[in-house]
Amino acid sequence: MGIPTQQPGTTIQSVESIDKGKALRITWSDERQARFHALWLRDNSLDPQTRSTQNGQRLITLNELDNAIAIRVASLKEDGIRLEFTHEDQPVDFEAGWLRANAYDRTPEAATIDTRPKLADQQQAWDQSLDIETVTHDFSRIMADETERLSWLRNMQRFGVTRLSDGPIRETSLLEVVAQFGFVRETNYGPVFNVRTEIKPGNLAFTNLGLQAHTDNPYRDPVPTLQILYCLENSASGGENEVVDGFKAATRLFEENEAGFDLLTRYNAKFEYHGDNDVHLSARKPMIEMDVNRTLRCIRFNNRSIAPLSDIPFEQMQDYYSAYRRLGEIIDEAAMKVEFRLEPGECFIVDNTRVLHGRKEYDTASGKRWLQGCYADNDGLLSTLAVLERRLSGEVA
Amino acid sequence: MGIPTQQPGTTIQSVESIDKGKALRITWSDERQARFHALWLRDNSLDPQTRSTQNGQRLITLNELDNAIAIRVASLKEDGIRLEFTHEDQPVDFEAGWLRANAYDRTPEAATIDTRPKLADQQQAWDQSLDIETVTHDFSRIMADETERLSWLRNMQRFGVTRLSDGPIRETSLLEVVAQFGFVRETNYGPVFNVRTEIKPGNLAFTNLGLQAHTDNPYRDPVPTLQILYCLENSASGGENEVVDGFKAATRLFEENEAGFDLLTRYNAKFEYHGDNDVHLSARKPMIEMDVNRTLRCIRFNNRSIAPLSDIPFEQMQDYYSAYRRLGEIIDEAAMKVEFRLEPGECFIVDNTRVLHGRKEYDTASGKRWLQGCYADNDGLLSTLAVLERRLSGEVA
Repeated sequence: MGIPTQQPGTTIQSVESIDKGKALRITWSDERQARFHALWLRDNSLDPQTRSTQNGQRLITLNELDNAIAIRVASLKEDGIRLEFTHEDQPVDFEAGWLRANAYDRTPEAATIDTRPKLADQQQAWDQSLDIETVTHDFSRIMADETERLSWLRNMQRFGVTRLSDGPIRETSLLEVVAQFGFVRETNYGPVFNVRTEIKPGNLAFTNLGLQAHTDNPYRDPVPTLQILYCLENSASGGENEVVDGFKAATRLFEENEAGFDLLTRYNAKFEYHGDNDVHLSARKPMIEMDVNRTLRCIRFNNRSIAPLSDIPFEQMQDYYSAYRRLGEIIDEAAMKVEFRLEPGECFIVDNTRVLHGRKEYDTASGKRWLQGCYADNDGLLSTLAVLERRLSGEVA
Repeated sequence: MGIPTQQPGTTIQSVESIDKGKALRITWSDERQARFHALWLRDNSLDPQTRSTQNGQRLITLNELDNAIAIRVASLKEDGIRLEFTHEDQPVDFEAGWLRANAYDRTPEAATIDTRPKLADQQQAWDQSLDIETVTHDFSRIMADETERLSWLRNMQRFGVTRLSDGPIRETSLLEVVAQFGFVRETNYGPVFNVRTEIKPGNLAFTNLGLQAHTDNPYRDPVPTLQILYCLENSASGGENEVVDGFKAATRLFEENEAGFDLLTRYNAKFEYHGDNDVHLSARKPMIEMDVNRTLRCIRFNNRSIAPLSDIPFEQMQDYYSAYRRLGEIIDEAAMKVEFRLEPGECFIVDNTRVLHGRKEYDTASGKRWLQGCYADNDGLLSTLAVLERRLSGEVA
């Protein structure tokens, strides 16, 4: 219930107050050491006055604690340590495993700044060698079997793309897919939109044209972080789908041309959509976004909705364009693409912050092609994944 | 239809090809000059082969253009310029006002890097001197009158908070509010959630406790960018609402302690929620997020759901904590707060990336307090605002 559980197999050998009680040094039985500040420890106490036992939420604000707080007494207990703080009566206990899991005192090696863009934990970069069958799951099994559902969601986290096969050929079946992990993000395109050839298309997706691999809705902030495309009919020749790992493409650009990569992260691009009278969406965001640790967070790449770039200085524009073009060339390479054809009852799901998707042109004279699409968000997916990981690993659910 | 219209009153005095046709220099009639690259101009051509006349989307990819493209002939036209490019037959026209609006050749002064955090265009920082009446609109009028709706949405963009008064006292009335500009973001709390005292609260919001001003759901990525809280009953004493401009608070922290501000932007905090068995949300994100131009983009501040911070090195943790504490002190200052009491039929809307909201403790013995809440997103709000701005300023809708 909101309180991290003890990591098994870690015991503390010694605890030592340092810096006049402003910090502690802990040594675990495997000789690993870490220092903790007194204020950090008090702020993170798990006692029932600090944390709600019902929902794990903190009951106090930081400003209620004494900024000059120090440790008066630190002693070893069987499963961890017991601390007494200045100006406080109640001792507070910390488990050895919890301290280990939350240690922030890293060795200098680990703290060295590496400029290479990183993938988040669990993510794996891929190219055409990714076998689509590896990330294909059976529609009915992910519905019925928690182990299969876990495996599917792990693949979503790892690769940012999965396919479901042998599903029903029913309208709004894609909503059943979303319901397995989260919630639809409704937009001006509706909760669900139909991707098929229209007479007066409000978006080029609703034509038979080929679409270069792209991320959806970069003109929206926040961008929809997941997209599901579900096939109901596909008798037309052509229209094969393709997916590209945008983080792999960005990493390749970095390796070839670090300065160019840097330009795409440092300046805002602009994306815009006003395909009909009631919608005018626009966003200024970088094509490649990293977080403060240089972990790749979001790719925005869409030749249809990119607007005139005006946040890049004249002196850098030529180099910016060269990097942007090169990123597009990498994305267009056959070596980067996983291609497949969706049959009715099949769908694919992409992490729209990472994986680009495209399609080949299709022939409207030869038959029909009808997909349904919707957006959803990664927060619910990662939450469901975390819950299943815990439950199926036998931990307390 | 997706094509920017001419800005009136701007005419071009001269156009000159420079750098062997790789760029142009344009001089407007008011002597302002700007250079444009040939490749940028060709990429942004508005001719029907490049841009769909139906939805304004680009029909070509950058990689289809010649990287060495140059301008063969540049000539003045009545309303702009006409260009002929190397290796292309079709001349392309650009309007003087469009070029002016999209110019990226800034003077060196404008390009100077200023470390001060900025607010986005149209945003205004505020403190307790903001009169809540300034941002209060009548529920029925914003529904019925586009001018009033425009004024309401402008206030949302400018201040990040508005209140609606004299609305119906009906469940789900808040959905009518969202429908004026966009779509509900459903989460594990439901499409709509009830904020009232519960016996077994899954979240401290569902108790009578006071809540320090905070942003909602910082443990979610993407964070919900708007929140609506709608009052259905409020006979309990206490429970007053308060709002604080987080961008103002962050700017004050920067002015007092630039190094501390920098720590809050440079390292990820961690937020977590697992109040029940089926949800385990967590996100690592900075407390203060700026975009690449140092424009403030998102504040995450929530004493209830902050998790043990472990992405900050030991050597910086004390200073990080000092800055975090100081930010909390600024947020808690009466000088920063706008306080009001919601009556039944009233609601308030906050930009949850910017404005913190809190409430005072209330007395359950004295009466009842029942609010309904929901989340939505800023993309739809800003789109509706842009459409109304255009329509009501007399431009082509």
